[in-house]
Amino acid sequence: MNVYKRLESLGIALTEPAIPAASYVPFVRSGDLVFLSGHLAKKDSKILVGRLGNGITTAQGAQVARAIAVDLLGTLHAAIGDLNLLSRIVKLTSMVNSTAEFSEQHLVANGASDLLAEVFANRGVHARSAFGVAQLPLGACVEIELIVETRPA
Amino acid sequence: MNVYKRLESLGIALTEPAIPAASYVPFVRSGDLVFLSGHLAKKDSKILVGRLGNGITTAQGAQVARAIAVDLLGTLHAAIGDLNLLSRIVKLTSMVNSTAEFSEQHLVANGASDLLAEVFANRGVHARSAFGVAQLPLGACVEIELIVETRPA
Amino acid sequence: MNVYKRLESLGIALTEPAIPAASYVPFVRSGDLVFLSGHLAKKDSKILVGRLGNGITTAQGAQVARAIAVDLLGTLHAAIGDLNLLSRIVKLTSMVNSTAEFSEQHLVANGASDLLAEVFANRGVHARSAFGVAQLPLGACVEIELIVETRPA
Repeated sequence: MNVYKRLESLGIALTEPAIPAASYVPFVRSGDLVFLSGHLAKKDSKILVGRLGNGITTAQGAQVARAIAVDLLGTLHAAIGDLNLLSRIVKLTSMVNSTAEFSEQHLVANGASDLLAEVFANRGVHARSAFGVAQLPLGACVEIELIVETRPA
Repeated sequence: MNVYKRLESLGIALTEPAIPAASYVPFVRSGDLVFLSGHLAKKDSKILVGRLGNGITTAQGAQVARAIAVDLLGTLHAAIGDLNLLSRIVKLTSMVNSTAEFSEQHLVANGASDLLAEVFANRGVHARSAFGVAQLPLGACVEIELIVETRPA
Repeated sequence: MNVYKRLESLGIALTEPAIPAASYVPFVRSGDLVFLSGHLAKKDSKILVGRLGNGITTAQGAQVARAIAVDLLGTLHAAIGDLNLLSRIVKLTSMVNSTAEFSEQHLVANGASDLLAEVFANRGVHARSAFGVAQLPLGACVEIELIVETRPA
């Protein structure tokens, strides 16, 4: 199935990647791999500040991770030009701003993993690590980075 | 030397990789590289819960890391089919559930690094990062991920 | 421009990579990619101990990150033999030893990102993740790892 039709049926609209205000970029391609920068939790272009285990529930965290995955798709579209050329989501790394007690980083990350599987089916199923960090840039509650594989146009 | 004979001489029995209960998998292959998901500390298939610097010693942590490396070998065997085709352990990342005071993440990680060198000799010597995290999925004390390189069968 | 002339004009002298006292190495090459181990903050070969948000300012952290980037260049020179063969800094990951309140990991990481762009121009602009960790090996305040792409000699 065409990935853009799939996105439409899921009600997902892609957005342009934010341009970092520094000496780095949202993605770099090397051979068949594309490395995506860590994308921070946002709503209406504003950072979603907070910490899991302290006022943000696991279910809310999973929704945040799903929204980051949508932002990552926007960056992937900009990187590849045509999402139908994506051959595999290779690796997802999920960094969750966590209290010392919060231990459901994997359930938060599922929000992103599930979306990628919905959009790309088997090609969206990936290797993954999730862990709790002490703090994130601008106080964001979640940060996710990706490595994907593409095939020639 | 045949890797399986080497494992036997070290008294190491491989186990099947655990199948994640989510939209991700234990490994993804891309070209000559295989990316392994973060593997959590376990004993008898149960998560080893705890935090370095608070009741778990560095020596115990290194033993835990060694056991995770054995689990990673089980996943690698499932990924490659024949561990003799592994041409290099490329990169190991070790996330250690740490108090604010515990600063021996490198000595914990050595438990995994040393095992890989014992099993694969020069091909097992890798690039590495180790750091202390605020918390891990299910409260695990250590999580380790790998990137390896293989050659064609 | 020749990278070594550029380093000279920036007043940067490369140093030999430190040899880890364990079963890992400062870098591993796989195809066109070189994976560099996490490099710890150092001054005069001694670890720079501390935590951002507790006595180390963001500006100081950025200077530390810049110095780590210089160490990474020394390792890259040892890895590639000729830095002019580097075709792209692909991915930088910056782990910042952070209090629960410190949320300027991105500004710390800029110290390294900016140096790489100064030295390599467009080829130095990379994908990046930065996050706050609970603690680092030997109490270091910052750790940075790299993935770079090279072309044949």
